[in-house]
Amino acid sequence: MLPFARVSIIGLGLIGSSIARAVRAHMPTVRLTGHDADADVRAIADRLQLCDDIADNAGAAVTDADLVILCVPVGAVRAIAEEIASDLPPEAIVSDVGSSKAGVANALKAALPTTQIVPAHPVAGTENSGPEAGFATLFHGRWCILTPVEGSDPAAVARVEAFWQGLGANVETMTPEHHDLVLAVTSHLPHLIAYTIVGTASDLEQVTRSEVIKYSAGGFRDFTRIAASNPTMWRDVFLANKDAVLEMLQRFSEDLTALQRAIRWGDGDALFDLFTRTRAVRRSIIEQGQDDSRPDFGRVHE
Amino acid sequence: MLPFARVSIIGLGLIGSSIARAVRAHMPTVRLTGHDADADVRAIADRLQLCDDIADNAGAAVTDADLVILCVPVGAVRAIAEEIASDLPPEAIVSDVGSSKAGVANALKAALPTTQIVPAHPVAGTENSGPEAGFATLFHGRWCILTPVEGSDPAAVARVEAFWQGLGANVETMTPEHHDLVLAVTSHLPHLIAYTIVGTASDLEQVTRSEVIKYSAGGFRDFTRIAASNPTMWRDVFLANKDAVLEMLQRFSEDLTALQRAIRWGDGDALFDLFTRTRAVRRSIIEQGQDDSRPDFGRVHE
Repeated sequence: MLPFARVSIIGLGLIGSSIARAVRAHMPTVRLTGHDADADVRAIADRLQLCDDIADNAGAAVTDADLVILCVPVGAVRAIAEEIASDLPPEAIVSDVGSSKAGVANALKAALPTTQIVPAHPVAGTENSGPEAGFATLFHGRWCILTPVEGSDPAAVARVEAFWQGLGANVETMTPEHHDLVLAVTSHLPHLIAYTIVGTASDLEQVTRSEVIKYSAGGFRDFTRIAASNPTMWRDVFLANKDAVLEMLQRFSEDLTALQRAIRWGDGDALFDLFTRTRAVRRSIIEQGQDDSRPDFGRVHE
Repeated sequence: MLPFARVSIIGLGLIGSSIARAVRAHMPTVRLTGHDADADVRAIADRLQLCDDIADNAGAAVTDADLVILCVPVGAVRAIAEEIASDLPPEAIVSDVGSSKAGVANALKAALPTTQIVPAHPVAGTENSGPEAGFATLFHGRWCILTPVEGSDPAAVARVEAFWQGLGANVETMTPEHHDLVLAVTSHLPHLIAYTIVGTASDLEQVTRSEVIKYSAGGFRDFTRIAASNPTMWRDVFLANKDAVLEMLQRFSEDLTALQRAIRWGDGDALFDLFTRTRAVRRSIIEQGQDDSRPDFGRVHE
């Protein structure tokens, strides 16, 4: 028994198109309708046959749905929710995939006061964007966090949970506020730092851009991957989760200043202690199946 | 015609053992002698047959060499160079693989005033350490930077260049000082930042360590890889390349503060502009063959 029979996906980028492919793979009888604000993306989605139907406007995409998933940058959630409000069937559940949750929950509640809302965040992705970048196995073994809001019906939450489990994800539930703190450190701060260092390295006068690229295998290239993520999506995340990001950034800056001081004063023991401690975190991530155990992420060395 | 006939490798960790394997693969007639200060490492190297001979002390390892490569943490270079000084054949060339070069060059010149010295830095590695972590293809397609010192014989530099090319590397030459600036930004600063953020994330009170690990696929896990690198090696690098690292760190901190301010004041355009610019750097790295073009570093999604 499938949790939903008619799923609408609004926004057909990396995540939306991956959900479409995963639904096709795992729930082939589900009727899929898609929409994207960009006509070019709709044309590609049509050509790739990502959905049974691609609607030209968001309202038309949801008229028949029992689950609507908004896969748009978090700054666009409020407007798209208002756009579909009058076409949404009363029994439809609305969810999303945004990387920050407290703001999204408020936007959805405000735009859709009588609708069952179950915000969600699949913690998965790649540095690529767009409908062609998605793939069906993106959520396999990854966590999807549900952040039910006041008034969320437990039955609706259970159906969304079953949906994500059906796509191969593990599901966890927490408050939107706690989600935003956790993701500020595991995702938003890493992206912010990666964007910063790639910018810093591009702007030096003593070291050329071509030298930075040439010798990037010394560690820098690892940072460029996440600094190649979707700019609109990430701009919105930092603006939406401002408080938690600024708090984590403050802590990071304090720790970096302490390390800077250790280097300046030649305190090798302080450096060695930290560098030993951080190895254990990597081991735990691999033990828990959250990263590839092969050295260098399994990069091919031929 | 091989550039060297009898190569000695002092230090049989990730890099030393990879050189040994690469020499076996590409220059099978070369006679290889190895030494490591750690008796356990020597025993493993013996068992793996990494070299033709494993010597119990550094002096004995070099008596017959025409190339000696010191593959030890940069803080240990001076002591090991002094240790081999009296056993070194006068015509032997001494090189190393250290990640910082100005300090190493001075240490080698001081300890071995009459020896031909050609410092080198293969920009390659993984997060794993020790003699079992090495592999023969580690240097394929990677850059090896030579930093000849005052008095380096061009013929000696050419032989070391031919050696590294023989192991599959591309070779570039620059001054030790310029090397240290370039690597401060492409390698040392990324490592410092990765160590810092992994430390920051481990020390929060609102978010548990297990949550950090569980949701690390949002970006954090990318940082843990380089924060799992060898603590002794990296302690020494930061102490040896203090000035360049502190300068790059200062620039990074300024850029991070600017981004922090943009988030606090809701300046979405500033964020979007940077996030768009950084994508281009990733593209260049892939175009120049310095990273895997597959999404997510080619991590397997099953």
